[in-house]
Amino acid sequence: MDIAAYMAEVGEQARQAATAIARSSTATRNRALLATAGALDAARNELAEANGKDLENGRSNGLEAAMLDRLELTPARIDAMIEGLRQVAGLPDPIGAITDMAYRPSGIQVGKMRVPLGVIGIIYESRPNVTVEAASLCLKSGNATILRGGSEAIHSNQAIAECLVTGLRAAGLPEASVQVVRTTDRAAVGAMITMPEFVDVIVPRGGKGLIERISRDARVPVIKHLDGVCHVYVDAHADPEKALKVAINAKTQRYGTCNTMETLLVDQEIAADILPLLAGAFREHSVELRGCDASRAIVPDMAAATEDDWYEEYLGPVLAVRVVDGLDGAIAHINRYSSQHTDSIITENYTRARRFITEVDSSSVMVNASTRFADGFEYGLGAEIGISTDKIHARGPVGLEGLTSQKYVVFGDGHIRT
Amino acid sequence: MDIAAYMAEVGEQARQAATAIARSSTATRNRALLATAGALDAARNELAEANGKDLENGRSNGLEAAMLDRLELTPARIDAMIEGLRQVAGLPDPIGAITDMAYRPSGIQVGKMRVPLGVIGIIYESRPNVTVEAASLCLKSGNATILRGGSEAIHSNQAIAECLVTGLRAAGLPEASVQVVRTTDRAAVGAMITMPEFVDVIVPRGGKGLIERISRDARVPVIKHLDGVCHVYVDAHADPEKALKVAINAKTQRYGTCNTMETLLVDQEIAADILPLLAGAFREHSVELRGCDASRAIVPDMAAATEDDWYEEYLGPVLAVRVVDGLDGAIAHINRYSSQHTDSIITENYTRARRFITEVDSSSVMVNASTRFADGFEYGLGAEIGISTDKIHARGPVGLEGLTSQKYVVFGDGHIRT
Repeated sequence: MDIAAYMAEVGEQARQAATAIARSSTATRNRALLATAGALDAARNELAEANGKDLENGRSNGLEAAMLDRLELTPARIDAMIEGLRQVAGLPDPIGAITDMAYRPSGIQVGKMRVPLGVIGIIYESRPNVTVEAASLCLKSGNATILRGGSEAIHSNQAIAECLVTGLRAAGLPEASVQVVRTTDRAAVGAMITMPEFVDVIVPRGGKGLIERISRDARVPVIKHLDGVCHVYVDAHADPEKALKVAINAKTQRYGTCNTMETLLVDQEIAADILPLLAGAFREHSVELRGCDASRAIVPDMAAATEDDWYEEYLGPVLAVRVVDGLDGAIAHINRYSSQHTDSIITENYTRARRFITEVDSSSVMVNASTRFADGFEYGLGAEIGISTDKIHARGPVGLEGLTSQKYVVFGDGHIRT
Repeated sequence: MDIAAYMAEVGEQARQAATAIARSSTATRNRALLATAGALDAARNELAEANGKDLENGRSNGLEAAMLDRLELTPARIDAMIEGLRQVAGLPDPIGAITDMAYRPSGIQVGKMRVPLGVIGIIYESRPNVTVEAASLCLKSGNATILRGGSEAIHSNQAIAECLVTGLRAAGLPEASVQVVRTTDRAAVGAMITMPEFVDVIVPRGGKGLIERISRDARVPVIKHLDGVCHVYVDAHADPEKALKVAINAKTQRYGTCNTMETLLVDQEIAADILPLLAGAFREHSVELRGCDASRAIVPDMAAATEDDWYEEYLGPVLAVRVVDGLDGAIAHINRYSSQHTDSIITENYTRARRFITEVDSSSVMVNASTRFADGFEYGLGAEIGISTDKIHARGPVGLEGLTSQKYVVFGDGHIRT
């Protein structure tokens, strides 16, 4: 197979489909989503069979248990995909919204209209449910999509692709509106990220290594999410009860998510009082603590943190702890070590809260709230294609709006420039 | 000079300055802008002397007259730079604006705060006034700036840089908030566009060749403006008087701008009636017409247009003319040949106007208005760093807001995720 030629064909078809889908009505796109849900429901046997092949291949190739788990399409996961499609169909359509329409001194009326980006390329690992999730958000926002999932999920993804085609066909939309790449050859990824004439933006989903590689080699804009080294700073003016509640939740509610706290910062003014309480609570949750010297002087049975710990995204029951010199020390630490994902201050002090939200340069800044709230659903976006740690285009949780652009609309009555 | 090391130092200093400037108050940034205006006014002699050197070198290097003209810092251009700084100081500060703050079912309050992008790299040709214009917009929007102007303007740009440093110092901002690259070595451009650790976005200003080169080689996001192949489509339902007025203005008000009409499309239903009138009016303005066969059947003394003409940005008194098959023909032509800059329909028909603005995929779409309006000032942005023909991040005229991002702000009261 000539991968370059194949991908160019996929790209060209996507570009053509993008024009049709951009013009389609809200009702048409919703019909495609609901018909896909119906097709998935009707294809449970085929999905199970295709997924069975992937699982079998995975097992015989010695795939890890965690990877096999992500690969599996259980009946509950199929239910969730169907439910997800219905939810996305129910979301408001961002496309066509006109805002800020105002008359200018020249007499023209100028506003902005929300439009699709065009063709979105999704590159992800071996979780077949991402195929439906990503495709549904791109479709809802009027974009054509090219999906390239992990090679271990190829049969599952092709079975899902058939359901998507059924859905598109039922709504009278071009089948190429959503295309799942049919080859496991890695050259397909290389081609996809270097054809700006066919692809407007790439959204990679997966580990940091994958995303760094794609960002480095792409010739197309990438909406990327690297890591989540999130902080909670317990200020001297914190309410200790809120501090405990939020810190424990930020770390222990789920260990493996990007918005989980990885480093706890404590103001030196209250460290002697509050650190023993915090340490005790984390011990109850079996969280391993790695502290700076000042922390260990207060809570001696902590392991010693090294410089590397401040950069670490543990994604597990380990927490770095550092005593800092007040708000300035906290901000300096965060702006140096944070991955600019999500950082929270616990304080009752108005001025410190205000400074924290202004001076911490992260995609989500919080006061007296758990970092675990950094999420498209919690923020009311209705959906989430990912969390961007970039500043360009989209920052923080990315919902439907992040998959759109705006164009200027000008209404005149024969107006000319003088 | 070790260009890589020098640029890394410039980048590192810019990154540091960016933190300070992002935290600075509106008043501080305005003070720096006004102090720079004062410094330019006080340095007229030094500016003339430095510019004299550039002009002399330019002449002895055989620079074209048009290039020498752009290079010259006349007293009127210095006045304009000073006036520009005062205008930018008077614009509303976009930074810190919080919008869409709303309570979520969980009880947290979520909104978005506008923040600077960080470090902006500006690459431009030999127009020294761009140095002040670009620096002022980046400064106002809280960003640090690295400016790399054309080598022919090096002395003028360094003299302007001193005024900028004086202004920054007067306001207590780091001098590295605005840096003008001190070398004419082209390797500096290569370094600047490949250091994402220090530069957040590149805004190139200049010819299509420069911009294409930069976009191809950049490892940093680029807000780019390629060409302006703009269309006016005269629909069968057009008011002929408006059609004539707008078409003439769109072509002849200024020939050399990117929002000038380059191709006129006429609905075949009215071509026989209106094309002779349009052709006569353009002849009065000495505009050379190049028409399709159908156009030439109606107005025989037009030159014949070739396929290349539909792609051409003449930037002069030449206009391509094509008769199209109604609105569908017009949209098909535009979506194929337009540079997605600015396109306008002349019509009294509601449904056709509505379809045109929805289906034409350009950064500005207009009804009964001259394409010449596509401009940051005309749109009320207060300023313009350029016009983006990209869809990612900023599209169309880019003002202060295009140089910013948004972060999420979350207020809680000890809220945790359950």
